Amino acid sequence: MPELRKEPVSGRWVIIASERASRPTDFKSTHQPIKSDSCPFCEGNEEKTPPEITAYREEGTKADTRGWRVRVVPNKFPALQIEGEQNKRVEGIYDIMNGIGAHEVIIESPKHALSLTALDNKNVEEVLWCYKERLIDLKKDKRFVYGLLFKNVGASAGASLEHSHSQLIATPIVPQQVINEITRAETFYKNNGRCLYCDMIQQEIDTNSRIVTLAEKFVAFTPFASRFPFETWILPRKHDAHFENLQKPEIEELANVLKDTLIRIETTLEFSPYNYIIHTAPFYINESEYFHWHIEIIPRVTNIAGFEWGTGFYINPMSPEKAAKLLRSTQDVHKNEQTQKCI
Amino acid sequence: MPELRKEPVSGRWVIIASERASRPTDFKSTHQPIKSDSCPFCEGNEEKTPPEITAYREEGTKADTRGWRVRVVPNKFPALQIEGEQNKRVEGIYDIMNGIGAHEVIIESPKHALSLTALDNKNVEEVLWCYKERLIDLKKDKRFVYGLLFKNVGASAGASLEHSHSQLIATPIVPQQVINEITRAETFYKNNGRCLYCDMIQQEIDTNSRIVTLAEKFVAFTPFASRFPFETWILPRKHDAHFENLQKPEIEELANVLKDTLIRIETTLEFSPYNYIIHTAPFYINESEYFHWHIEIIPRVTNIAGFEWGTGFYINPMSPEKAAKLLRSTQDVHKNEQTQKCI
Repeated sequence: MPELRKEPVSGRWVIIASERASRPTDFKSTHQPIKSDSCPFCEGNEEKTPPEITAYREEGTKADTRGWRVRVVPNKFPALQIEGEQNKRVEGIYDIMNGIGAHEVIIESPKHALSLTALDNKNVEEVLWCYKERLIDLKKDKRFVYGLLFKNVGASAGASLEHSHSQLIATPIVPQQVINEITRAETFYKNNGRCLYCDMIQQEIDTNSRIVTLAEKFVAFTPFASRFPFETWILPRKHDAHFENLQKPEIEELANVLKDTLIRIETTLEFSPYNYIIHTAPFYINESEYFHWHIEIIPRVTNIAGFEWGTGFYINPMSPEKAAKLLRSTQDVHKNEQTQKCI
Repeated sequence: MPELRKEPVSGRWVIIASERASRPTDFKSTHQPIKSDSCPFCEGNEEKTPPEITAYREEGTKADTRGWRVRVVPNKFPALQIEGEQNKRVEGIYDIMNGIGAHEVIIESPKHALSLTALDNKNVEEVLWCYKERLIDLKKDKRFVYGLLFKNVGASAGASLEHSHSQLIATPIVPQQVINEITRAETFYKNNGRCLYCDMIQQEIDTNSRIVTLAEKFVAFTPFASRFPFETWILPRKHDAHFENLQKPEIEELANVLKDTLIRIETTLEFSPYNYIIHTAPFYINESEYFHWHIEIIPRVTNIAGFEWGTGFYINPMSPEKAAKLLRSTQDVHKNEQTQKCI
């Protein structure tokens, strides 16, 4: 059983999942390239994953067989375990609880696509519908307070399989970084009567020096204090705290903006590893006036060194204004290249 | 001129040092191995660095010539610039100031040593004296409020040169992570009348399941909520907020404990990359009852994925109890190997 432990000095929570490795040599493979032989995420290999939680599939096809377009399965090596009680307790000055949670994998295509950008727009929309559906479902489990959707692309960004997929982890505690964001946004709202993110969107549109894409319902820009070269955020222009409130027209446009933004990043950085993370409000917060959901895309082209670990602040060798300019000017040469890479 | 920019959503500060890179291809080299040809840190190559700030050298030898044992120089590619005014200002909702600060390199040996562990104990002591001396000196500059000492070992931990060295960055703002630690420690002190770190040390000694080394004046243990496999902290057993308060007997023992701990980590992990960071109190805090300086050693054997970026909490596949046991049982086979690797 994994454990959730709290660091009293920093307030950080850590998942100790010691079933995952037991010898120092177990870590040796983390920098190896990802192999695609007999991929467990490809159509026809459904028996290589745990039984599916949900799938969007052709009518008349059965669970865990061919015929799906997007498929959600439990992670075979979960960071948190779905069965059991939390058993919150203290050990002297330390807080500890059982590592209860959900850890799901959203397989985005039955084909061996290497990126979300290789999928057609309808397929990307279904991935987003799937995100929404899973968040709404996990919200019903009263043990969980937060649902974190994220994507790792490339071995050094944490991906262990190259077949395009996302992950969803539902946790019994709200991560400290999320609490920090929410607290700051709440303070801003109390002081100014407005949403900090709405103000930021307006300023970015007015300044127009960091915009990557300005669509009707969404905006993508490189943040003013980008931690990493080509870091890009996507926000809904209309205030909303919860990703899972998305409706059909928004999902259609978001699929388009997300794919377009990733194409620009992949083309500019020649398929460097990246992560994206969906920052959404905790389950227990209803229609919040002050928090505003968004997607943070983090290309992994620079190494994190001691300075960043020691301080939590970052050295970024590329100004966001320059990054936005390069991303805006990217030609759509990417599509053909990526299709060729797929089986 | 680099800029210091504040992210309004998270409160993070970022250094935008755009002189460091201007094209996407500038990032391509970050994962390349480090070359040792004509190393600028080796004795005899003093002209390849900016003029030295200080050095411990043989009597009668001149600055920027041979004869030194430890040498401090300005970083040739500084993240922050020493000359100029801060010019704090706002741009709408954003905070910004000029990137003023110090960025120094402590070259730990005139020989091309690949690790601090290849140095003899007297040499390690001089490195620590040098840390202390530089902190005390930078404290006098009223523009700076914090001094961060850290070490990057290995390319993927952020080192760009393999010759053993540390870095010191003095900043005009206190990093958010440091503020967070201090605030939590202060709250604990107010509630309990004791130092949180002193309590932690006592509990670790009593429990005795995560101790790596228990010496007279220092203790090394794997923290209860370790973020990374083999993460190890070294703390002075006697309460002190400031690293630079160290005196001769403590420096002698710390050199020994630090070198011993690094030897255990290097041997166990077969010279994987790592960072260490000295967490010390900000310059303006005097003899604090609640903050307790310490060194955090972070082996870089696992990749940081989307989950960690999105939440600030970590998945660690190795329990700290198991890591401590492995580190304690490490034979000292390392010394000979490491000496052979050095020129």
